Amino acid sequence: MKRAKRIGAPPGIVTLTTDFGGADGYVGAVKGVILSRFRGAEIVDLAHDLAPGDVRAASEVLLRAAPLFPARTVHLCVVDPGVGTARRGLALLSNSQLYVGPDNGVFTGVLAQGGDPLARALENWGLFRDAVSPVFHGRDVFAPIAAHLASGRDLRDVGPEVAPASLVRLDDPVPVADADGLRGQVIHVDRFGNLVTNLCAPADGAASVEIAGRRLALARTYGDAAPGELVAVVGSSGRVEIAVNGASAAAALGTSAGAVVILRAPRESS
Amino acid sequence: MKRAKRIGAPPGIVTLTTDFGGADGYVGAVKGVILSRFRGAEIVDLAHDLAPGDVRAASEVLLRAAPLFPARTVHLCVVDPGVGTARRGLALLSNSQLYVGPDNGVFTGVLAQGGDPLARALENWGLFRDAVSPVFHGRDVFAPIAAHLASGRDLRDVGPEVAPASLVRLDDPVPVADADGLRGQVIHVDRFGNLVTNLCAPADGAASVEIAGRRLALARTYGDAAPGELVAVVGSSGRVEIAVNGASAAAALGTSAGAVVILRAPRESS
Amino acid sequence: MKRAKRIGAPPGIVTLTTDFGGADGYVGAVKGVILSRFRGAEIVDLAHDLAPGDVRAASEVLLRAAPLFPARTVHLCVVDPGVGTARRGLALLSNSQLYVGPDNGVFTGVLAQGGDPLARALENWGLFRDAVSPVFHGRDVFAPIAAHLASGRDLRDVGPEVAPASLVRLDDPVPVADADGLRGQVIHVDRFGNLVTNLCAPADGAASVEIAGRRLALARTYGDAAPGELVAVVGSSGRVEIAVNGASAAAALGTSAGAVVILRAPRESS
Repeated sequence: MKRAKRIGAPPGIVTLTTDFGGADGYVGAVKGVILSRFRGAEIVDLAHDLAPGDVRAASEVLLRAAPLFPARTVHLCVVDPGVGTARRGLALLSNSQLYVGPDNGVFTGVLAQGGDPLARALENWGLFRDAVSPVFHGRDVFAPIAAHLASGRDLRDVGPEVAPASLVRLDDPVPVADADGLRGQVIHVDRFGNLVTNLCAPADGAASVEIAGRRLALARTYGDAAPGELVAVVGSSGRVEIAVNGASAAAALGTSAGAVVILRAPRESS
Repeated sequence: MKRAKRIGAPPGIVTLTTDFGGADGYVGAVKGVILSRFRGAEIVDLAHDLAPGDVRAASEVLLRAAPLFPARTVHLCVVDPGVGTARRGLALLSNSQLYVGPDNGVFTGVLAQGGDPLARALENWGLFRDAVSPVFHGRDVFAPIAAHLASGRDLRDVGPEVAPASLVRLDDPVPVADADGLRGQVIHVDRFGNLVTNLCAPADGAASVEIAGRRLALARTYGDAAPGELVAVVGSSGRVEIAVNGASAAAALGTSAGAVVILRAPRESS
Repeated sequence: MKRAKRIGAPPGIVTLTTDFGGADGYVGAVKGVILSRFRGAEIVDLAHDLAPGDVRAASEVLLRAAPLFPARTVHLCVVDPGVGTARRGLALLSNSQLYVGPDNGVFTGVLAQGGDPLARALENWGLFRDAVSPVFHGRDVFAPIAAHLASGRDLRDVGPEVAPASLVRLDDPVPVADADGLRGQVIHVDRFGNLVTNLCAPADGAASVEIAGRRLALARTYGDAAPGELVAVVGSSGRVEIAVNGASAAAALGTSAGAVVILRAPRESS
């Protein structure tokens, strides 16, 4: 069986997260290089419609999806507005998952999950494509490295080790405790218009949430509100989210990333 | 060979139909869980850009695509606006295809194709992920069940049998015969702006179609009309469609789902 | 191992390039037919969000991606506004890659790469689905042929040979040398708003580019310009591109396909 043959071996999966969209040849070029370098690769699309250059959105996608894959899956991320400049290319091993992409913050979310990452800079030109275009490292640098790692070859081949502390991280806002409770903010708006905050769910589950002058009790799911009504829930990534049942909270509140959200402990909620 | 090894076994294919779009981590999370539960799964994307909560569109996708897959393919559908509420989760066996998703109407189209479906409610928490988020059953309930079925394990494991008659079905409009002919309606507008109706193609192929005060002879294909002109054809799902050659009929007529369409028999057509 | 088993055999990969989008069942229907006909097929999505009927965009996707795949990959392209009319269906072998789709210009880019293509018209109805819809050859004609070829069966089975010179090619504009230098044009605008021209990069790399009254030195990469500033680079397909660092050149210049671009040799650049 396919499964049995791979025990002890890397799984051969390569996931792709890009801002390439679905109307150009860029996604296909990356896939072609991966399969030409390692015919056994299993390519899995995560997300290709990120806004151009949206490094934070890439970090969110990887944070939510990558840890759920089999160990030693290779997650290739090409959201790379600084392609061809001095920014480094990276290969990471973090919590048993492998990552390849630019050192520009796309790995902020996975690095925040801890687990003693190992990082190497991509400097072994012998592994890249023969001619490296300064405007498409996704195809010419990252894809060959992803194939290299997916085929089970050594992370140490790709280039010198770099200190995890030196990796670029997005400047994530940290919630602040004040007289009102815990003051955080909206950090992501998803396709449904749900407002994902940087506020972790309270352990006891009982709290209220304030946004745009509205106070909401923390509910279990979207359908706990009437259709069209605002609702605050603990989202699937463990962070507080504000939603509208059956519609977009972002549209209803005219709110986007950066909006202030306050989490009040139960005793302050009444 | 891959093929030979699977004779008599389920094919291991899992298709995905969702409203998750291409810019968030939700599609990736579902895929990660499936592959972690069953490494031999072959994941095939059907459609991820359905409008949020558009249960009818999900039904259309499954109706058109699912029956064409090898027997015992698992079709996972996550268009689930009522996630975490009392709505049931389902696994179905219908016409040799397996389906997993919410009991909210997404299976209306495949159920209408008959074939004595077997249905079970997803109640075996031992198969789900350890912590089930009330807002993401796609990841925590449906994905593990899809992996379970794709790996060839028993449909009976997932929970108790439920009566097919009890499954939620969308209230599909039925064409009505009257003095004008057969009066139906537009039930879907596709990406090309083609208007898909609920009128089955007449057996003899000869008929005319009325929409928005226009009468059209039933043609063979789009190119039978001049560029920019309206044309009525028998669509690829066997239902009458109104299109514009090289443009959008929905835009040209200002028409959307619900618009009345009348099919006249040949003798009435002149 | 999967790889070893396939030495000498076709790779079994089928790539898909369509204008079907992500909200209808058309992509899924094509995939279902391919997998039902050849269970060993590995389906790889290239691009599904081409504008409806955009044959030139399809040609661009194939040009950029197809040559990078393992030899004998089958590239199925369904951008087919003339479906069901007298336009031919084709199977091509060109530079060791196989192509299946309509004879409407989608293969212009790959044919321009030379390599003595072999072409056959799809006329063997015995290979098609039993009932061929005049409005969905992607599902009923091209998908079965793609499965046929991916499974290693003979290109000669599909129908009679046709002269490569007879194949439909888009009327690609050719740059013209004049007193100003080499006068070309924008032929594609990508998702980033980058303007891809039909001007090949000068061998010595030193030149300037004129567009919309602006003269730009040819730079190495986007980041060589300040954020928000125009920059001309040699794009990843070897053609001159005009971009804006971190934004859309198409938006900044109000420019689309057809705009004049002039490449000046170094001695004229000062």
